[in-house]
Amino acid sequence: MAGVTVYGPAMSTAVSRVLACLLEKDVPFQLVAVDLAKAQHRSPDFLKIQAESRAICRYICDKYAEKGNKGLLGRKEGGFVERAWVEQWLEAESQNFNPPSSALVLQLALGPIEKNEGKLAKVLDVYERRLGESRFLAGDDFSLADLSHLPNCHYIISATDRGHLFASRKNVGRWWEEISSRPSWKKVVEMQSSPPS
Amino acid sequence: MAGVTVYGPAMSTAVSRVLACLLEKDVPFQLVAVDLAKAQHRSPDFLKIQAESRAICRYICDKYAEKGNKGLLGRKEGGFVERAWVEQWLEAESQNFNPPSSALVLQLALGPIEKNEGKLAKVLDVYERRLGESRFLAGDDFSLADLSHLPNCHYIISATDRGHLFASRKNVGRWWEEISSRPSWKKVVEMQSSPPS
Repeated sequence: MAGVTVYGPAMSTAVSRVLACLLEKDVPFQLVAVDLAKAQHRSPDFLKIQAESRAICRYICDKYAEKGNKGLLGRKEGGFVERAWVEQWLEAESQNFNPPSSALVLQLALGPIEKNEGKLAKVLDVYERRLGESRFLAGDDFSLADLSHLPNCHYIISATDRGHLFASRKNVGRWWEEISSRPSWKKVVEMQSSPPS
Repeated sequence: MAGVTVYGPAMSTAVSRVLACLLEKDVPFQLVAVDLAKAQHRSPDFLKIQAESRAICRYICDKYAEKGNKGLLGRKEGGFVERAWVEQWLEAESQNFNPPSSALVLQLALGPIEKNEGKLAKVLDVYERRLGESRFLAGDDFSLADLSHLPNCHYIISATDRGHLFASRKNVGRWWEEISSRPSWKKVVEMQSSPPS
């Protein structure tokens, strides 16, 4: 089939923006399902769509100028003035409308904050029991299992008011004090506050 | 310099997980700043770290088995039983601990939901005035500027209880009805509910 190949999912706001543009322009395309489980969504092609959907739309309008809806970038007879208006409001969308609306979509999709806090509390109850039996998660020694928890624990404890989730659990609190005091993690925290130039 | 190159930012939970592992293993590395503005974070190398930090940590432990902390995957003298414990708790971290704690970190970083809603409301007030002067954002014709708004508007209006942000504004509401009724967008919505196999 001639035309353009778009890598889904169509649910993605970036992909659906490109699809709407292709349909307006009457450009034939095929949508290829992306198997998230197989991590194809991390391939550069998919990423390009994720990150640059507005640039891709502009490109489609330029490349297929004579097809479908010819006014998407401003009508030709309108000249530069009309195109300037389109550019101005495209800019408003990406700079002013997109940040708060994307954040809102994301927040509403994540569900109530209390729900995630409740889930985390239940997970930490299991950890509390385990850490009553052994010094570290996998036994007497610090392991990769403990290390993997450091980044998220650190954010919640040092940058939010939800640190009590850890401190209020005796064994979890003791474990956090111990793993976060390791020279390796202290060095990472130091690197976070003074990033390389 | 010999060793490993890690592409920052060190603030990323995935990057900091890998850094902590390298420091535990006494493996020399250099941290290369990633210029987000230049979108280097979309390069495949950076993505690899973002998505597979746990696999990278395992790889570092295997490749540098004789360096630094030799017990991160379980002590050798402990044999398979100890390694199995480490694997079990690594799995607990990525499957049980990470989802709610990452969601919580993200939600707390995005700030109160009301803050984003307030910002969006202010943006829509500007749109309301503009759409009182012209039928579409850039003038009398539907353009890419209108089209670019479709994905986020659609989510907020069809999948959340915040649709009133649009409906309560007379001109914005009229504009949304018109742009979302276009055959192109209706087709996209149809594709979203029946993705390709």
